[in-house]
Amino acid sequence: MSTTAPGPVITAVIGDRPVPVHLAVGALDRVGALVAGAAAGDGVIVVVDGGVPHAGARVAASCRDAGLRVAVEAVPAGEASKNLGELERLARAAARAGIRRRDAVVAVGGGVVGDLAGFLAASYQRGVRLVQVPTTLLAMVDSSLGGKTGVDLPEGKNYVGAVHQPEVVVMDPAVLATLPPRELACGFAEVVKYGLLEGGDLMEMVAAWPALPGPAAEVADLIRRCAECKLAVVSQDEFDLGRRAILNLGHTAGHGIEAAAGYGGYHHGEAISLGLLVALRVSEHALALDPRWRDRTMDTLARHGLPVTLDPSVDVDEVVEIMSRDKKADGRALNMVLLRAPGDVLTHQDPDPAVVRAAIEELRS
Amino acid sequence: MSTTAPGPVITAVIGDRPVPVHLAVGALDRVGALVAGAAAGDGVIVVVDGGVPHAGARVAASCRDAGLRVAVEAVPAGEASKNLGELERLARAAARAGIRRRDAVVAVGGGVVGDLAGFLAASYQRGVRLVQVPTTLLAMVDSSLGGKTGVDLPEGKNYVGAVHQPEVVVMDPAVLATLPPRELACGFAEVVKYGLLEGGDLMEMVAAWPALPGPAAEVADLIRRCAECKLAVVSQDEFDLGRRAILNLGHTAGHGIEAAAGYGGYHHGEAISLGLLVALRVSEHALALDPRWRDRTMDTLARHGLPVTLDPSVDVDEVVEIMSRDKKADGRALNMVLLRAPGDVLTHQDPDPAVVRAAIEELRS
Repeated sequence: MSTTAPGPVITAVIGDRPVPVHLAVGALDRVGALVAGAAAGDGVIVVVDGGVPHAGARVAASCRDAGLRVAVEAVPAGEASKNLGELERLARAAARAGIRRRDAVVAVGGGVVGDLAGFLAASYQRGVRLVQVPTTLLAMVDSSLGGKTGVDLPEGKNYVGAVHQPEVVVMDPAVLATLPPRELACGFAEVVKYGLLEGGDLMEMVAAWPALPGPAAEVADLIRRCAECKLAVVSQDEFDLGRRAILNLGHTAGHGIEAAAGYGGYHHGEAISLGLLVALRVSEHALALDPRWRDRTMDTLARHGLPVTLDPSVDVDEVVEIMSRDKKADGRALNMVLLRAPGDVLTHQDPDPAVVRAAIEELRS
Repeated sequence: MSTTAPGPVITAVIGDRPVPVHLAVGALDRVGALVAGAAAGDGVIVVVDGGVPHAGARVAASCRDAGLRVAVEAVPAGEASKNLGELERLARAAARAGIRRRDAVVAVGGGVVGDLAGFLAASYQRGVRLVQVPTTLLAMVDSSLGGKTGVDLPEGKNYVGAVHQPEVVVMDPAVLATLPPRELACGFAEVVKYGLLEGGDLMEMVAAWPALPGPAAEVADLIRRCAECKLAVVSQDEFDLGRRAILNLGHTAGHGIEAAAGYGGYHHGEAISLGLLVALRVSEHALALDPRWRDRTMDTLARHGLPVTLDPSVDVDEVVEIMSRDKKADGRALNMVLLRAPGDVLTHQDPDPAVVRAAIEELRS
């Protein structure tokens, strides 16, 4: 059964280049058709998260069906794969597979594979084409969009990388049904963030969301709304010089909590859940945010299994210390994103550290 | 004795950003003043070639004098340092030194350090400021200019990298007096290339050049002329999509000879010397170049100690095979830059392989 493939649901313009987002059930099988083209090379390397081999196999098959030469490399699931040794392994595999400048890297997986394979595309032969095929909710609404790529050092996350926009982003919401609940919840923490950033009916939609992942048609709509929100911000500030900082709502405290809790503690999205609650409480003190927004957000987060209380073993002083040396800090003691109301957001705020400390401490009760 | 520092001798515009080139005896001691500035961070990491510690120390001292925080990292001399492990070591050192996004990487050395530290600047925290301080003739006229950075893989040179323009380039021709003759000669092979690319009085100046390095004032003038030639090309084609290919004159055959001769054989500039002779002979067949240009070029190269005959142990078939899989190839069997006359250059030529083979074979006699 062959039908005309639907077009992108979003086409953002970043820098001077369009970034089309295809979002549909079954889109995994259309990647090859989207990658192949007159101006393109005939080779692809599919870099796939070891946790979703089936998605990788479907993408690779669609590329072969489109007449492309296909190499496939699996990456072990987990943040530990985001390192320069793994980048080198993939670059050597690409070289042996004869990947050239007009060929493409196709990243199939969550944030780890998107960041790692994205940096491969940015740096292999000084830059080749990149196709992002996010398979987690977090990657669909956040990490696959905006072009940030990179790997970690022992000294910090994403310390080596590049800004390299994907040529196309392909999302198949059907894969969400196969995700573990904890993974879905982590992605939902970012969805809650977009609700707060945009306010209005997106905030209402998020607050009323049923059990994850939710009804297929509505899920696609929710992802599209969040992706539009992110891409609108990125198109104004590709290189993170100003407005893009609003996307860090909940992340300054979240990163501090994640780091202080250490390996095996909170997943990223779980730490963001707690970070959002800190940012909202601080916003009440600094910008007179109505406290009902925090109560409502806490209900939403808790209802989807995200943490709303802090493990007592986490050292609050350490969290504050890490927050004050966050790499996004630009000389300010604390560099937070705060709200006057959902949809009314201020970046580069420097709140009273005692208020921030109290907002974290409060989570332990 | 304090005087007003002279301005740049060239200010190229690449993309939408100016790239000023400072070129003067004593310029090493002015790097700090050029790096420090109102919009800039207060930290620098100086990456210095282990072969020129004195130049690194002067640059570091000038940065300290300008009030900057300074970390210094030495890199072992030689192409073997251009690898991802060394990049990781430098990135971790930068992280421990607290280098942030508005701080700078200062590369002091030849092409190896320029490429390696340049890629560090391109990728550390997704891009920081870069200052190139080339200390070899090759780096002054070629590799420090144009923004190509990267490291090697076992599968090929410069297979992982980025295009990242320096914020400023600082050249002190006095350091050339300290270089070994073979190193100077290698740089001169690229100078001969610029003479052929531009023709006219630059060609005459190059053909009449006395013993290397030459009289100080004239050396500065020669470097400036070559740098202007390179930057004019790069400013038209930063990302190497078309016209920039003319800079590969002599490089397709040169790379083939360098690779076929293997480790410890020809230095890059020596292979380019032979590659230029191949390109000129092929140009006679394909574009009716006057044979006297090749004779004259051979005299110039030989007079400065560059090879004009090929070691008999090099396998000519292997050279041709490597040329035909050169990473710059875009589907053509052979992708060479050829001349109708000095200053009249055609890129993306696909000459008869038998003619190319004969032009290489001829060098063995």
